[in-house]
Amino acid sequence: MSLDNHWFTEPVEQTGTAFSLKLGERVHAEATPYQKIEIYRTETFGYLMTIDGCTMVSTRDNFLYHEMMSHPVLNSHPNPRDVVIVGGGDCGTLREVLKHPEVKTATQVEIDERVTRLSEQYFPELCVANGDPRATLFFGDGIAWMKEATPESLDLIIIDSTDPVGPAEGLFGRKFYLDCVQALRPGGLLIQQSESPLLHLPLITEMHKFMREAGFAQTRLLHFPQVIYPSGWWSGSIAQKTAGPLAERLDPAMIDALGAQFYNADTHRAAFALPTFVKKALGI
Amino acid sequence: MSLDNHWFTEPVEQTGTAFSLKLGERVHAEATPYQKIEIYRTETFGYLMTIDGCTMVSTRDNFLYHEMMSHPVLNSHPNPRDVVIVGGGDCGTLREVLKHPEVKTATQVEIDERVTRLSEQYFPELCVANGDPRATLFFGDGIAWMKEATPESLDLIIIDSTDPVGPAEGLFGRKFYLDCVQALRPGGLLIQQSESPLLHLPLITEMHKFMREAGFAQTRLLHFPQVIYPSGWWSGSIAQKTAGPLAERLDPAMIDALGAQFYNADTHRAAFALPTFVKKALGI
Repeated sequence: MSLDNHWFTEPVEQTGTAFSLKLGERVHAEATPYQKIEIYRTETFGYLMTIDGCTMVSTRDNFLYHEMMSHPVLNSHPNPRDVVIVGGGDCGTLREVLKHPEVKTATQVEIDERVTRLSEQYFPELCVANGDPRATLFFGDGIAWMKEATPESLDLIIIDSTDPVGPAEGLFGRKFYLDCVQALRPGGLLIQQSESPLLHLPLITEMHKFMREAGFAQTRLLHFPQVIYPSGWWSGSIAQKTAGPLAERLDPAMIDALGAQFYNADTHRAAFALPTFVKKALGI
Repeated sequence: MSLDNHWFTEPVEQTGTAFSLKLGERVHAEATPYQKIEIYRTETFGYLMTIDGCTMVSTRDNFLYHEMMSHPVLNSHPNPRDVVIVGGGDCGTLREVLKHPEVKTATQVEIDERVTRLSEQYFPELCVANGDPRATLFFGDGIAWMKEATPESLDLIIIDSTDPVGPAEGLFGRKFYLDCVQALRPGGLLIQQSESPLLHLPLITEMHKFMREAGFAQTRLLHFPQVIYPSGWWSGSIAQKTAGPLAERLDPAMIDALGAQFYNADTHRAAFALPTFVKKALGI
């Protein structure tokens, strides 16, 4: 059967899949210099923000993505003091990062200020840490920002961007990764959202190749459910400036203090457990 | 945007979500005494079987469900000799079960023979073990079958059914679970597909309550990606006739011999790692 106009649908022609959410109404739409942003009230997922027709963030399930793009990599670094988030304009990743008291500075570099302003309005719960004295909200191009970053000034880079088409395309390339390597201190980590393990495995494999070619010593993958993204199954690719095992800071009191809904010591470890077909593709 | 008629869409009004696959054409449709079965050729997921408008099995992603509904529970039992599959008419679960040499009998109790006959035609790769001398394909009502099963004759019950509406409704009730407890040997295990951890948590909680009320000593949950089912995130609920820790038969040579695409020792353990919000709901 087909859906009437009370649904928002994101069809992905390339993967032959589509996901839909039943709507209340569209409450906002605007074209910024970078993209088209729309906000819908959905029947069961709270508010939904879409960019250029792709689902970005919903009230109900954003905790999956935001927790799994931040806590696993933060707790895999022995002492993450200085963190930069590239993209992440909805501020949900920033909020999770700032739950870690060991973080001294967290800089969000979002190209489109309107994403953040609309998030403040429709997803205020994601923006509660924006006033934290450790937070800087910078609006500008992440690629240019990274090129000019002080060498060896960062412990962690979180690339929380849209898909590798349009404004985010350059964030998936060797040149950008080279600047990331330079900006990281020894032992520094990068994590980048890397699409669906089932639908986008060739992209993931290429990203890891580019990361190693740019000078990263080792790459890893983690995966987690993310309902509103294509296939409902998503991944983050981790690149290490220095080879070797990752730290595992999983002290129960510290984990409890994060107040996470998905993330805990068990799901931390589970996120790194790779299916056999993924291991084969990545040559792990 | 809306999808044209080149897509199959399963809208779930109750959860306000829909999933769609881009089609080639519908290659078969029939109404059996139990349900309406359709087969489509899709653009990117191979063949798709739907029952009463719900996605059941696709060529591309069925390995996720079939592997995770069989291997984790088989390897959690110290010596699973006699296995019954309730439902499972596409024969994919039967195929995975029979990969285990320790299994001596595997009986598939499917109410609708047409599901199996169509699977033989459109999903022949799932039916390769149907001729195994250890396999019995019985076509009839799983509820009646379990009522008449010899007490303490089974090590493992796998309930691989449709959703808890229509023909499968009785498979989610206390009476059926009571018969399952009787049919299992001491130490026996049951696993039942239990829908989406995000969308159907109240159902999962109720199932576990019913299982314990029926006499199961302990229940557990495992979860895994399943792209074509609502939310792309699915679960299996395990009920133990006898309380205590599960076996963990994860010998590398045995795991390798299964030739699984998703399942391995790492994803076995990861499947049991529960998100905090699920632990809270289940009181674990």
